[in-house]
Amino acid sequence: MQWKVITVGKPALPWAKAALEDYLYRLKRVTRIEHVVIKEGPRDQVEVQLLNASEGSLRIILDERGKARRSLELAQWIEQHDLRGTKRASLIIGGAEGHSAKFREQADECWTLSSYTLQHEIALVVLAEQIYRAYTIMRKEPYHRE
Amino acid sequence: MQWKVITVGKPALPWAKAALEDYLYRLKRVTRIEHVVIKEGPRDQVEVQLLNASEGSLRIILDERGKARRSLELAQWIEQHDLRGTKRASLIIGGAEGHSAKFREQADECWTLSSYTLQHEIALVVLAEQIYRAYTIMRKEPYHRE
Repeated sequence: MQWKVITVGKPALPWAKAALEDYLYRLKRVTRIEHVVIKEGPRDQVEVQLLNASEGSLRIILDERGKARRSLELAQWIEQHDLRGTKRASLIIGGAEGHSAKFREQADECWTLSSYTLQHEIALVVLAEQIYRAYTIMRKEPYHRE
Repeated sequence: MQWKVITVGKPALPWAKAALEDYLYRLKRVTRIEHVVIKEGPRDQVEVQLLNASEGSLRIILDERGKARRSLELAQWIEQHDLRGTKRASLIIGGAEGHSAKFREQADECWTLSSYTLQHEIALVVLAEQIYRAYTIMRKEPYHRE
């Protein structure tokens, strides 16, 4: 599976940027993953850009209304999609305004990371660590403990 | 409310340390909060230290089995405890091994941040941001959006 992580606006928290780079570096040894940043602007314009950037891929949005998973379940989800031949997946984190209802309808899946509202750069760090954790589970590496 | 955030072992991720410092700095303008680090060691010894460090305070452990909340609910929880006169609360994040059943029994509350297993330093960052967010909600500052 080839991943695209799509976020809106330049990161404002330097440590969150460093955290993301850390996990992307680790992930690039085991899969293909890139980070794409969409320029901030009015939500409808941003959402057009998000749709364009995720065209032709499984479109996953991160949203408080989404499905909660355990780390093992995420690893199983990736394995199943690999078996099914899913080639590309996009993980989309919106800005502080969240996603519109119309945009959410165009997503294939909606995931949630926490019952709490996470600052969107922290959500990105949590997400990157979960994707990394999922690969360590799939590769039976000693990182995840139940 | 006076907070003590108690963790085990020196932070290994420099960006997580920077993130925690960022939120503690912001929080110190609105409440009293300190970070206490317990030395790593065998779990039973570590847990004795965690109990000692949180003596005389409301003891809250962070655990996957805990209660999930929304950010607004956390702000309400703090307000209620302030009204009730709760003076001190300790937030305890264990190491990679988690907490023992015996230790969990000695906690007043058990909170969970995510259905996913979070690396414990990331859990600490998520927690610090939630406490900060709760204070911005209580103070009606324009940080949190529903």
